[in-house]
Amino acid sequence: MGNIGICGAGLIGASWAIGFANAGHKSLVYDNNKDSFKKFELVCDQLLKDLTIINPDLDVNKIKSNITLDCSIEDICKDTILIQESIVEDLEIKKKMFEALDKLAPENTILASSSSYLLISKISENVVHKQRCINAHPALPPHVVPFVEICGSTETSTEIIKSAMSLYKNANYAAILVNKETEGFVLNRLQGALLNEAVRLHEGGYASMDDIDIALKHALGIRWAFMGPFEIMDLNAPEGIKDSFSRYRVGIQNLAKQQNTVPEYSDEYLNQLENEQRKRLSHSARPERIEKRNKMIALIRKLKLELGEDIQNG
Amino acid sequence: MGNIGICGAGLIGASWAIGFANAGHKSLVYDNNKDSFKKFELVCDQLLKDLTIINPDLDVNKIKSNITLDCSIEDICKDTILIQESIVEDLEIKKKMFEALDKLAPENTILASSSSYLLISKISENVVHKQRCINAHPALPPHVVPFVEICGSTETSTEIIKSAMSLYKNANYAAILVNKETEGFVLNRLQGALLNEAVRLHEGGYASMDDIDIALKHALGIRWAFMGPFEIMDLNAPEGIKDSFSRYRVGIQNLAKQQNTVPEYSDEYLNQLENEQRKRLSHSARPERIEKRNKMIALIRKLKLELGEDIQNG
Repeated sequence: MGNIGICGAGLIGASWAIGFANAGHKSLVYDNNKDSFKKFELVCDQLLKDLTIINPDLDVNKIKSNITLDCSIEDICKDTILIQESIVEDLEIKKKMFEALDKLAPENTILASSSSYLLISKISENVVHKQRCINAHPALPPHVVPFVEICGSTETSTEIIKSAMSLYKNANYAAILVNKETEGFVLNRLQGALLNEAVRLHEGGYASMDDIDIALKHALGIRWAFMGPFEIMDLNAPEGIKDSFSRYRVGIQNLAKQQNTVPEYSDEYLNQLENEQRKRLSHSARPERIEKRNKMIALIRKLKLELGEDIQNG
Repeated sequence: MGNIGICGAGLIGASWAIGFANAGHKSLVYDNNKDSFKKFELVCDQLLKDLTIINPDLDVNKIKSNITLDCSIEDICKDTILIQESIVEDLEIKKKMFEALDKLAPENTILASSSSYLLISKISENVVHKQRCINAHPALPPHVVPFVEICGSTETSTEIIKSAMSLYKNANYAAILVNKETEGFVLNRLQGALLNEAVRLHEGGYASMDDIDIALKHALGIRWAFMGPFEIMDLNAPEGIKDSFSRYRVGIQNLAKQQNTVPEYSDEYLNQLENEQRKRLSHSARPERIEKRNKMIALIRKLKLELGEDIQNG
C-alpha cells in the first residue's frame, strides 16, 4: 500500500493520519510549526479512544506504528501516492503550499485539500500540474465520521478523480463525487440549507432554539442517521419516490418560495444565540458534551455496522 | 387520566391510539368507514412489535386493553380531554369534521388536527369554539418517533396551548411549540429546505442520488440523530455558538443567496427519480426496507434512551 503525506498536524490532520494508518497505509505527517506535534499525540490518543468504541479490537499500536511524526515537507512528497493538505483555511497560504507540494512531489501523486469552502480551482491556480489537484473535504468530527467528498476543477483529470475515489474508498471512507465545483460541495450545502431555515424560524419568532433542536434530533435526525433524502422519500408513499414527490411537490415548492431570504447573522443576533445557548450549556460543560457527542456518533456507527447499514453498504 | 378520542383509524390514528394508551389514557377510536378496523388491529400489532424493540418489557396487552375500537363519533366526544383528528388530508372534509366535533364535544375538550400542511385557522373556520382548536402534527413513522408540533391560530387560547403541551409531554411525546402559523410548521420546513437543496444538487448534475444519500446518512445524519442545529454549531468552534457563526456566516449567507430557486419537480424529472431509485431498491423490496427503517429508528431510540439522550432529556 502506498504512503500518504499528511500536511498539517491539527485535528483534521490527525484524523486523516489515523484513518489512513488504520487502513494499512504509512502516514507521514508534516507541519511547519514543530510545536503542533506536542499536542498531536494527545489528540491521536483521544481520537483512537473514540474509535475503540466502534471497534473494541482496534489495533491501536499498529495504527500508531504506521504514523511517522515530524516529517519534512520533502519527506511527505517522496514516494507518497496522496498528500492530504489540512493547514489553515487561508487561500493565499494554501496556494503557496500547493505550489511547493507540486514542485516536490512525483507527478502522479494526488494533491488533495481538506478545505471546506476554498475551491481547488483557486487553490491550484499557480500549480503546474493542475490535473492532479482535488478537494477532498471531510466531515466533522472526521475520525468517527469517515466521510469525504471529492471534487476536481475543470483542469483535474478523470483518472486522478477515479484513483482518488478508489483510494479513499479502499481506506474505508464513505467517498462521494461532486461532479462540478460548487461552494460548500454537497455536505455543507445540505447543512447550510437546513441551518439557514433553522435561523429563519428562530429569528422570526416561530420557535425556540430548544424546540428547533428537538425537531431535528428527536424527529428528522433519527431517520437521517441511516437514510438519505431520496431513500426516505421512496418509502414515504405507497408507490415509491415518484408517488411521494407527486403528493408533496406543491407543498415543497411553496416552502422553496418562502425560504429564499438571507439571514443577516448580525452581531446582536449572534450575541442573543450565545446567551440563550449558555443557559442550556455552560461554557465549562462544553468539552464534556463534545466528548459525549463523539461517543454517541461512535455508538450509532457501531449500531449501523452491526445492522449492515454502515459505510461498506453505502 | 382523561380519555382521548381518536378520529380516523388509519396508520396515524393507530399510532396515536397506541401512544396515548401506552401512557395510560383510554383511546377511543372512531372511523366512519367501518372497514378500516379490519386493518387497524393488524397495523397496531406491527407498530407494537416495533415499540417492543425499544422497550422489551412493553405491556402490549395493557396497551391493547386501553384502546376501544369502532366507537361512534358521539362516543369519542363524550368525556374526552382531547380529540386527535387524523382523517384524510382534505380541507373541506376536515372543516366539516371539526364543525361536527365542536358541536358534540364538551367545551373544554381540545380539538387537534394531525394535518401536516392544512393550518388550523382554515380547518376551524366554521367552528364556534375556535379557542380550543390546534394543529398537533406528528412525525413519520409516528409510533417510533413520538414527536408532535403544536400550533394554534390567532383565535386559539393560550390556556389550551399550555394544556395541550402538558398533555402530549405527559404522554411521552417530544412536544414543541410553533408560536405562529407557518406552512410546514418546523419539521417540514427544515425537511423541505434540505429536500429542495438535495434536488437542486441532483437535478443540476452536481451529485448522484446515491452520493447525496450517503452525505446525509453517513455524515450529517449521525450527528442530527441526537443534536439539533444550534447545539451542533455550539460545539463546532472553540468559543461556542457565536464563535461558530462568526466564522461561517459569510459562507452560510452565500449559500442562502444561491439556494433560492424553486425546483420544478416535473413529471419527467420524477420519472427519472423513480427509475434511478428502482435500480437501487426494487418495488417488491420496499416493504422489507420499511420494516428495517422502523427497526433502525427503534434501535437508535433505544440507544439514546440508554445514554440519557432521548425525549425525557429533550
